[in-house]
Amino acid sequence: MDLQQIGASHPRIKRVVDLQRNTKPNPEKLFVAEGLWAHNALLEADTRIEAFFWCPEASYSNEAKVRAAQIVERAERSYRISEKTLARIAEREKPDGLVSVAQLPRWTPDTIELPESALVLVADGIEIPGNLGTLVRTMDGCAADLLVLVNRRTRLTHPKVFRASHGMVLTVPTIEFESVAEVAGWLSRNDFTVLLTDANTHQSYRSATYGRRTAIVLGNERYGFSKEWRDYPYSPITLPMLGRADSLNVSIAGAIFMYEARARMGGS
Amino acid sequence: MDLQQIGASHPRIKRVVDLQRNTKPNPEKLFVAEGLWAHNALLEADTRIEAFFWCPEASYSNEAKVRAAQIVERAERSYRISEKTLARIAEREKPDGLVSVAQLPRWTPDTIELPESALVLVADGIEIPGNLGTLVRTMDGCAADLLVLVNRRTRLTHPKVFRASHGMVLTVPTIEFESVAEVAGWLSRNDFTVLLTDANTHQSYRSATYGRRTAIVLGNERYGFSKEWRDYPYSPITLPMLGRADSLNVSIAGAIFMYEARARMGGS
Repeated sequence: MDLQQIGASHPRIKRVVDLQRNTKPNPEKLFVAEGLWAHNALLEADTRIEAFFWCPEASYSNEAKVRAAQIVERAERSYRISEKTLARIAEREKPDGLVSVAQLPRWTPDTIELPESALVLVADGIEIPGNLGTLVRTMDGCAADLLVLVNRRTRLTHPKVFRASHGMVLTVPTIEFESVAEVAGWLSRNDFTVLLTDANTHQSYRSATYGRRTAIVLGNERYGFSKEWRDYPYSPITLPMLGRADSLNVSIAGAIFMYEARARMGGS
Repeated sequence: MDLQQIGASHPRIKRVVDLQRNTKPNPEKLFVAEGLWAHNALLEADTRIEAFFWCPEASYSNEAKVRAAQIVERAERSYRISEKTLARIAEREKPDGLVSVAQLPRWTPDTIELPESALVLVADGIEIPGNLGTLVRTMDGCAADLLVLVNRRTRLTHPKVFRASHGMVLTVPTIEFESVAEVAGWLSRNDFTVLLTDANTHQSYRSATYGRRTAIVLGNERYGFSKEWRDYPYSPITLPMLGRADSLNVSIAGAIFMYEARARMGGS
């Protein structure tokens, strides 16, 4: 492949470094994909690839070379970079010579289309990227329809969200609201049964009522869901905690709730 | 507190460094606990503390000072260390001045006592410490009785296992076998119904039969369970994968299986 070679002082390289550092606003939801696995995910999900950076000297597999050629076909612009420049823009140790700037798809509350039976996860203040990403991977597994973010504390473009989601952040629809009141309004207009997951209730998730459209609200790792939710007549549900600890990991609890909802709503 | 001050060349300090590096055999199952949270877990679980290292200059909370005094009461020996020595033995950035060498409890197949209705998780070749730890935390949550390790690829004394388990690795009983044949023999002698979790089957976990004693076998993150399990007439079960990805995170899948088993066996 005959690509333009660029170095560390090129504006495109500086932009990748800025994205990795996450120091500037990122309204386009750009993120940095590194390595073979991530690039397979970009290709499979038909993601917009704004720029591709290829370092053949750092590629250790034939598959990486094949993938590089496919990415060049798909990316809006492609460059060749040295191993030194690669080390500057990559966070992973061996990204197989492949780094791209890609764009997460954007959905909005007005354009999202929900089926008659719909399962929504509301993530209220989840702050650990690995937890948010794992939840998105599980949402894909049980065909949850939509992730709603509120009181967002971690960005979806975080590399750990991407990795933990197994790339599913590229395909699971996500919308974001500024406040619990806005989420509640939207859920109400769309006829959702809302279940608040809460360690301090006695209503087991096994005996809860799941509506044709069900939204499960998961709160922050330490503090649970925001107190504003108490203003609404939503049912709290919980998982039995039968041992010594008082909680499960939030991505574990979310998965048990979502798979139960999926089974009870039909479809598993 | 009037403790003996020791420095980086003291054999006890060298031993902590060796444990952190995990370069030597560790038949006593010693591990390094760092920080306030970990020390709370040691105290709560009544864990044997072989040695405690206290650096009051690096302690940022009154709670840490209170805890230090309690640990000195409990530990077999306690030392005072400088901030420099603390930096040498701690892996965490701010361990609040608290580091201990403690011992995981040891159980054996001969001495473990199982109730009439028992839930066992068999972890076959799980290799990511965070996954193993998260599984142990979930086992505590659903009151699973025993973790059985086979083809072990990560050690229970790994700091990430301890952290992800929320300290539950101190209280959830664990035994280890050298081979699948040995596990199968033990499960058979103890009247277990064995369910092999397998992405390539069609038997849903929702319609599986759970025995009064149920063992759930979870395989390696990439390769699944070892092929030796195919030699036994055990039922495969699976979770519906309704989206694009072909698998869930192993600690997520394990949690859904275990909570389903718990509900079906009674108790939630």
